[in-house]
Amino acid sequence: MRTKHLKPTLLASALALALVGCNSTTPTAPDEKVVTHTLAPLTTVSPVLAKMANAKGEGWDVHPKNAEEWTAFVQSSVPSSEQFAQDMIDLYQLTVSEEVIAGVPCFRITPPNQPEDKKDKLLVFFHGGGYVLNPGKSGLTEALQLAGIGGYTIIGIDYRMAPQYPFPAAIDDGFAVYKELVQTVPAEKIGVFGTSTGGAMSLVLPLQCQDNGVPLPAAVMAGTPWSDIDKVGDTYFSNEGDDNVLVSYDGWLGEATKVYANGHDLKDPYISPVYGDYSNFSPLLLVSGTRDLFLSNTVRVQEKMLKAERPVELIVYEGISHAQYYFDPDAPETKQHFINVTNFFERYLK
Amino acid sequence: MRTKHLKPTLLASALALALVGCNSTTPTAPDEKVVTHTLAPLTTVSPVLAKMANAKGEGWDVHPKNAEEWTAFVQSSVPSSEQFAQDMIDLYQLTVSEEVIAGVPCFRITPPNQPEDKKDKLLVFFHGGGYVLNPGKSGLTEALQLAGIGGYTIIGIDYRMAPQYPFPAAIDDGFAVYKELVQTVPAEKIGVFGTSTGGAMSLVLPLQCQDNGVPLPAAVMAGTPWSDIDKVGDTYFSNEGDDNVLVSYDGWLGEATKVYANGHDLKDPYISPVYGDYSNFSPLLLVSGTRDLFLSNTVRVQEKMLKAERPVELIVYEGISHAQYYFDPDAPETKQHFINVTNFFERYLK
Repeated sequence: MRTKHLKPTLLASALALALVGCNSTTPTAPDEKVVTHTLAPLTTVSPVLAKMANAKGEGWDVHPKNAEEWTAFVQSSVPSSEQFAQDMIDLYQLTVSEEVIAGVPCFRITPPNQPEDKKDKLLVFFHGGGYVLNPGKSGLTEALQLAGIGGYTIIGIDYRMAPQYPFPAAIDDGFAVYKELVQTVPAEKIGVFGTSTGGAMSLVLPLQCQDNGVPLPAAVMAGTPWSDIDKVGDTYFSNEGDDNVLVSYDGWLGEATKVYANGHDLKDPYISPVYGDYSNFSPLLLVSGTRDLFLSNTVRVQEKMLKAERPVELIVYEGISHAQYYFDPDAPETKQHFINVTNFFERYLK
Repeated sequence: MRTKHLKPTLLASALALALVGCNSTTPTAPDEKVVTHTLAPLTTVSPVLAKMANAKGEGWDVHPKNAEEWTAFVQSSVPSSEQFAQDMIDLYQLTVSEEVIAGVPCFRITPPNQPEDKKDKLLVFFHGGGYVLNPGKSGLTEALQLAGIGGYTIIGIDYRMAPQYPFPAAIDDGFAVYKELVQTVPAEKIGVFGTSTGGAMSLVLPLQCQDNGVPLPAAVMAGTPWSDIDKVGDTYFSNEGDDNVLVSYDGWLGEATKVYANGHDLKDPYISPVYGDYSNFSPLLLVSGTRDLFLSNTVRVQEKMLKAERPVELIVYEGISHAQYYFDPDAPETKQHFINVTNFFERYLK
């Protein structure tokens, strides 16, 4: 094909009228451009979500320098998250018990009045937080809502984290627990899910299964997965500052990369699962938002699944920054999200 | 729920270390913020697509003031688009014939060596261009590629356009053609598709069917549909300047709104189909890109479908601005896109 037809049908660049450049775009270095735009208050979401979306991004530009500063950073969010978890336990009247599976501390979340067709099924949950945040019960906030709304029994894995335990401790723990569970629950009745780092770990697990001859889970939900741990992908740049949760890669997230990867190749599929082999992957639900710093991390995995012609579903929520779809149980969008996830697992868990 | 848990698990806003605000975000008016970020050259797409993505957005800030200026604007892109169409006809050895259906000029695109199971099926195509651009053969570039790659017979509707023929001329033409076609081809063998304005018209058609007791098409592909014709929705703002095709609502697009809607209510579902009733809608494929000004126009429709628990699929492509997925036939992503669309129609057309 010799003739190039750039933007042939929507633009009219040859037109004499079109003299004006883009006011909001200034070219700088070749192939690099600085974009400035104004985010107006969101009018297309509920007031509760709009309040979250319109808030200023804070607390992202953190650079812990040693183990003590990491501990302080991690602990700073534990009390509010534990309270959030307790509120969800109370709201949905859930039972949460601790158990050790394959030597790894886990939580078993059981909803009340579980429907008959869900009693033999199990969801395995990886919490998020950059392989550094959300230890113990503070990591359960997403899982508790899915248990409450979806009616599933959920095993939340309290995997080891960096900087104390860098790669591959976290994914070793995850795989050990799954291998133990699949001894008693058939893989076709097991779903795996998580958001952010938990989404990445949900992508790594089927790759581990594939590599080790272990049956893959029947379905996986990877919410805005940290699929490329390096700052590679469009929306690390194009949604920087639009996203008010992570805001930028160049804060605590980039620091977490260093202490977790700990010198390993950032393109190792067990660290950046976007580089994995998806040719036999589990049916997959991906979730993101229009402002999500990880939108590219999400859609690059979809591209792999589409090329492999594997079942993949993608949901992108209006106005949502990274992982925000489970942050406020009062937003009607949050409840709808967990209904969407439930519907997905109901389609694939037999 | 009294306790609010804003961003509980990913941020640590209480932390003493977290003193630094977001350098790239400056609050201005309440609930409004100016964001500046730098788009780096895309490394996660093919070189052909990267070249398109890294190009500067041009030709968008056009404000035709009368019929003559509109004609000049429209005509400026016709020759290159007609050449693009001819190249696709040659490449895929397609037959294109003109026919009048229900009084409306149409094109029938027939691929060579059509597979047996596609001979009884039909796709109906609406071209894009803000209800003003891409008359005649210049509007066929997307449809020709789908005919060539997917093997479907396609009827492209050369509907009347603004400013000469404002709302509802275009959608009246579309519905008239569909009603005529469905007399001889069963609706379960008909798919409807289009991009941008063509995506919006593909959403309006099933609503017209619903309102008039006409059988709905078996499946619809609405690529980055102009579902809210007003500047309402997150990415009209958050992707302004990131998108190098439309760049901003406040150029020719906003002008096209005025001459097409022509004083009608912009929330009329026949003008802004995001406000339609999706409770019995056709199975739907939505397509967008990470930089697309219409990403919100796309995902707001998905939200309606999810709430209605109707079958909906969404694809978002890495690094893609508005409608760019069909602009360069040399990009491997373009071919993969048409394979994705073909796979979708094959799932739903029986």
